[in-house]
Amino acid sequence: MKKKVAIVGASGYSGEELVRLLLHHPHVELAAVTSRQYAGQPLGQVFPKFASHPQSSVVRFTEPNAALLAKQAEVVFLALPHGVAAEFAVPLLQAGCVVIDLSADFRLRSAETYKEFYAHDHPAPELLKKAVYGLPEVYRAQIKEALLIASPGCYPTSILLPVIPLLRAGLIQPDAIIADSLSGVSGAGRKAEVDYLFCECNESVRPYGVPKHRHLSEIEEQLSLAAGTKLTIQFTPHLIPVTRGMLTTLYLAPSKHFTTQDELTALHLEIARCYADAYSGEPFVRVIEGKALPDTKNVVGTNMIELAWRLDPRTGRLLVMSAEDNIVKGASGQAVQSMNIVCGFPETAGLM
Amino acid sequence: MKKKVAIVGASGYSGEELVRLLLHHPHVELAAVTSRQYAGQPLGQVFPKFASHPQSSVVRFTEPNAALLAKQAEVVFLALPHGVAAEFAVPLLQAGCVVIDLSADFRLRSAETYKEFYAHDHPAPELLKKAVYGLPEVYRAQIKEALLIASPGCYPTSILLPVIPLLRAGLIQPDAIIADSLSGVSGAGRKAEVDYLFCECNESVRPYGVPKHRHLSEIEEQLSLAAGTKLTIQFTPHLIPVTRGMLTTLYLAPSKHFTTQDELTALHLEIARCYADAYSGEPFVRVIEGKALPDTKNVVGTNMIELAWRLDPRTGRLLVMSAEDNIVKGASGQAVQSMNIVCGFPETAGLM
Amino acid sequence: MKKKVAIVGASGYSGEELVRLLLHHPHVELAAVTSRQYAGQPLGQVFPKFASHPQSSVVRFTEPNAALLAKQAEVVFLALPHGVAAEFAVPLLQAGCVVIDLSADFRLRSAETYKEFYAHDHPAPELLKKAVYGLPEVYRAQIKEALLIASPGCYPTSILLPVIPLLRAGLIQPDAIIADSLSGVSGAGRKAEVDYLFCECNESVRPYGVPKHRHLSEIEEQLSLAAGTKLTIQFTPHLIPVTRGMLTTLYLAPSKHFTTQDELTALHLEIARCYADAYSGEPFVRVIEGKALPDTKNVVGTNMIELAWRLDPRTGRLLVMSAEDNIVKGASGQAVQSMNIVCGFPETAGLM
Amino acid sequence: MKKKVAIVGASGYSGEELVRLLLHHPHVELAAVTSRQYAGQPLGQVFPKFASHPQSSVVRFTEPNAALLAKQAEVVFLALPHGVAAEFAVPLLQAGCVVIDLSADFRLRSAETYKEFYAHDHPAPELLKKAVYGLPEVYRAQIKEALLIASPGCYPTSILLPVIPLLRAGLIQPDAIIADSLSGVSGAGRKAEVDYLFCECNESVRPYGVPKHRHLSEIEEQLSLAAGTKLTIQFTPHLIPVTRGMLTTLYLAPSKHFTTQDELTALHLEIARCYADAYSGEPFVRVIEGKALPDTKNVVGTNMIELAWRLDPRTGRLLVMSAEDNIVKGASGQAVQSMNIVCGFPETAGLM
Repeated sequence: MKKKVAIVGASGYSGEELVRLLLHHPHVELAAVTSRQYAGQPLGQVFPKFASHPQSSVVRFTEPNAALLAKQAEVVFLALPHGVAAEFAVPLLQAGCVVIDLSADFRLRSAETYKEFYAHDHPAPELLKKAVYGLPEVYRAQIKEALLIASPGCYPTSILLPVIPLLRAGLIQPDAIIADSLSGVSGAGRKAEVDYLFCECNESVRPYGVPKHRHLSEIEEQLSLAAGTKLTIQFTPHLIPVTRGMLTTLYLAPSKHFTTQDELTALHLEIARCYADAYSGEPFVRVIEGKALPDTKNVVGTNMIELAWRLDPRTGRLLVMSAEDNIVKGASGQAVQSMNIVCGFPETAGLM
Repeated sequence: MKKKVAIVGASGYSGEELVRLLLHHPHVELAAVTSRQYAGQPLGQVFPKFASHPQSSVVRFTEPNAALLAKQAEVVFLALPHGVAAEFAVPLLQAGCVVIDLSADFRLRSAETYKEFYAHDHPAPELLKKAVYGLPEVYRAQIKEALLIASPGCYPTSILLPVIPLLRAGLIQPDAIIADSLSGVSGAGRKAEVDYLFCECNESVRPYGVPKHRHLSEIEEQLSLAAGTKLTIQFTPHLIPVTRGMLTTLYLAPSKHFTTQDELTALHLEIARCYADAYSGEPFVRVIEGKALPDTKNVVGTNMIELAWRLDPRTGRLLVMSAEDNIVKGASGQAVQSMNIVCGFPETAGLM
Repeated sequence: MKKKVAIVGASGYSGEELVRLLLHHPHVELAAVTSRQYAGQPLGQVFPKFASHPQSSVVRFTEPNAALLAKQAEVVFLALPHGVAAEFAVPLLQAGCVVIDLSADFRLRSAETYKEFYAHDHPAPELLKKAVYGLPEVYRAQIKEALLIASPGCYPTSILLPVIPLLRAGLIQPDAIIADSLSGVSGAGRKAEVDYLFCECNESVRPYGVPKHRHLSEIEEQLSLAAGTKLTIQFTPHLIPVTRGMLTTLYLAPSKHFTTQDELTALHLEIARCYADAYSGEPFVRVIEGKALPDTKNVVGTNMIELAWRLDPRTGRLLVMSAEDNIVKGASGQAVQSMNIVCGFPETAGLM
Repeated sequence: MKKKVAIVGASGYSGEELVRLLLHHPHVELAAVTSRQYAGQPLGQVFPKFASHPQSSVVRFTEPNAALLAKQAEVVFLALPHGVAAEFAVPLLQAGCVVIDLSADFRLRSAETYKEFYAHDHPAPELLKKAVYGLPEVYRAQIKEALLIASPGCYPTSILLPVIPLLRAGLIQPDAIIADSLSGVSGAGRKAEVDYLFCECNESVRPYGVPKHRHLSEIEEQLSLAAGTKLTIQFTPHLIPVTRGMLTTLYLAPSKHFTTQDELTALHLEIARCYADAYSGEPFVRVIEGKALPDTKNVVGTNMIELAWRLDPRTGRLLVMSAEDNIVKGASGQAVQSMNIVCGFPETAGLM
């Protein structure tokens, strides 16, 4: 029997992608979707691209109501702005639902850090210690037992997956991490703002949120855990004119200097082994071998993250580049991956 | 001495393009620009792309005030939403300014047609008979004497210039005109609406305003004048993912049937002569000869409209295709062309 | 047991999409893919976006060899240039394979028409009468029994599906059909030509192939069959800067004039009924009701074609607009749909 | 009287932009343009966007011939592939022309470095010491006296202008420079290669040339000169889906640590003063004050480079971001700027 799931706040880009993934998922039934704006309308009318699916005329958007949702679904995805997600998480958890939150509300362990970066008190600090950070490649065991899963942001995913294994293995210096990230415009959400109009984004590329973007809080907390020491990183997000896709270029300082060819070869092997240990069994991480480099068009529409790395003998640095779909592996796909784990489904169900 | 000009409503795409053209115009001084939103800020701060121009730090946006504008400038451009332009046109004309309006407010001769298509009473119907339709290739003599110039819309320009000479020469049937138009997103203006977000327009093409778009009123009035008979056309606008550019494909029925090669040749010559008579001396209309077809990328950033035409012996139809920059020849460039005429400047001044 | 299938010429955009669809199809096994250029390389290396699929490292490109293919597969897709497909079709059919050809080689019934439009003799005219035109909504019964299926082109699909039911029902005049089509750049294929470079297509829109595009032969042959009389249409293709997507706007002349509101209402009902009869049971045709109009972004990545229509009381015309993915419903998806029919699989298998 | 100029190799994107700039330049006459591919055709036919210019039907492409060019023009621009430019530079210089070369051939002082990065012997090593690096903000005095000007590449320009003043002032550590650059596709030239097709670049972002791109040779040579010590930098170019535009994000290590607010303030002042000293009088460098950050759309079509910088108290780093049009300030506009200097024209002539 299929598990009943619901999506709260299904009108944005992440919510829409969750609809797509869950409609086609072999083990779940999309029992409810909510949206204040679209309440009353069938799915297929709001999102014509799902109109051919049999469920699209059956499922209608409703006003969000935690009590009702708890009766309709066993697993509830929250695709809401930060600060709002907690309002639904608390009653849904009390009613016994598994909650998978795509906002930033439960990603941090520290309510103080939350306040520093989000400029308001955390709405439900008591839940922070219950929440599991939903990065399956790192927290699979914890996700399996979780009731509240905080699904990571797109920037954090694109940085954490390349960096965590290196930090854990002690292969890089924790205090010299630079992440330069390029994001598709869907990352800004389906918001009517002049900055994200076609004519403002097309034929444009621009940095923003420099030098202290909110996602830093989440990235640094996770990297610090991996390093076993509190660290600070440099992070520069840029907006580029693609709908979907995220490319991150990481500038890292290996712990060991390599000046001879032998040292280079040895370090090369260590890094290759480190990534192989971390990811050779992972269905959604691909470490590119050979001369190819990541390209977002290879991963758009998939839950895959591509990595490639180069040791630069001229500078002594390690470069790692990652490409993902910011809405899939960077948001909704990863949330479904966590659902698969917590529900005991095959981890790739509905995601291949 | 340079003539002083002002722009009312300079924060949209047409207003911004007027700023660009007038800042670089050899015979005018940009004396005032208004914008409620940006009042107080210098030009170069609001539009960084003009920051290198010496005037960009001198000229500041002000609140729009007709009395003040009338003291600052002899020619005033109105780049305002329809319905609002009339508020400024009336006092500015009374104060002796020449007014060049880019809105739809004074493009129609009939207040009834205005009400039918714009759904409210015309705000200043007494001005309709004073206004001159600012299409220089058709109304040059009248523009020279005008006090109020109603600068045409982008769709009308892309249709009228190809069709009027043919209608005047009796070469096509007036009741069988079909215009299929493709517009860049800047035509929708700098408005914070979800429909015009990057992610909603990119990788998308869609018709809209079918079958009775507002611009029909203006197109049909002008075509009827050219034909000497009231006519109705078919017009379908589409939105395509370019910032600027407009491509119109016209399906026309020649007045004469052509079935033999001789008839085809004769008609071919007549049409070629008709366009040569109309446009061989025009600096901003290019009738393409040879095998090439219009391409918006050839005209973007210029005040040029490109035309090409084909007689189809299989169907007996005449196809005409036009390409223009919707914001230049379709809006601000054409308005400057009218200013050049009314002020006695060389018609191409500031536009080459 | 899964049916073994092969793709000949899998390095272009249609071939790549066939790979994607067949890799994920529940009832087939991709037994062979050929490409002169990539022979020897595994699928996942040539197309990194499939690298996560278990088959991507197993299946390798081979040189195309009809005798070998006939042993490897029961169904063979040809994604080759026109003129070349016949070379493979003949031996594969002789060896007992079902052949689904995506080129133009077998779409026409007349070798003379082929020569007129393709400028060389048909390479295998004896096969023309055996081939079935692979438009499932029109030729489902024949496809079921076919050995050689000529899968339609993208332009023809976008025109035939909207027009055929109207012609069959006698609702429109057969001699007054105008089709204005906009195609994404993938339609030009993965060919190293300057005209299709990013910088030549981006921020550009242009007509081409005016007035006698090759696809006319196929469109007119099929429409003539539907009308029961030989007809000629007007067709103008345009290139727009999207990777995928095709939008066609059709200008049609209803057989009946409608001048009163009652006549309009009656005709409206007839057309609605005509489309309902034709398509209400079709899984891949969606006739939009209400105010929405087709938008390619709703169908990109799917095998769906969206239609909307409007009667224009001002002009007496019927407008029909269609949107499809030129590479899916316009090419590879439709070919898989035909395969599902001929193989007895559910028609939507692998396509939802 | 106007100075006669010629362009050798005017069919690529830089050559085409040179045509545009020189056609509109007040002090020069475009006396000759060469292109093997287009020899015999008038300018306006090859580049329809110039068709409205009076010279476009007069000037015809010719086969490149150094002896003839030397008679036609006093200043000759070479827009040729590296390795080929030297063939023309030698005879043109001997004939007394000023040569402005846009290729990489004369940008390096060392023939060894050239060979290391370009994999062939330098074709005219004796000219290397005569050539002046055409970066006007750095080498204005030398350009004034130059006969052979090596106009910088787009990546070097985007990096050198932000970094040189800081290095010269000793404000940053020379051995810790990281440059992360994003380039529009026009940087790849008008070459028929699959990698630069619309469908391969659209909805894609990818790094390339990692970790040892050719432009490094030129960047490091110039930075070493500024630092007074040989240095090595980290440089990662990426391709993004815009036609024009280049955005570079620089990660720099200040020479002084700043831990207190006073130290931060003091360093802030020093950097501001350094940039003011370097660029406050420069017409084509804009150091953005306030909260805004560079955006390529502000500089596309102009010869301007925009800079913004931030001290990050969390990491101790200095971030500098630059935006330019890769074809204007990064190529043809900068070449014209050098021409203005060497010819004694106002430096901004034809460039505002």
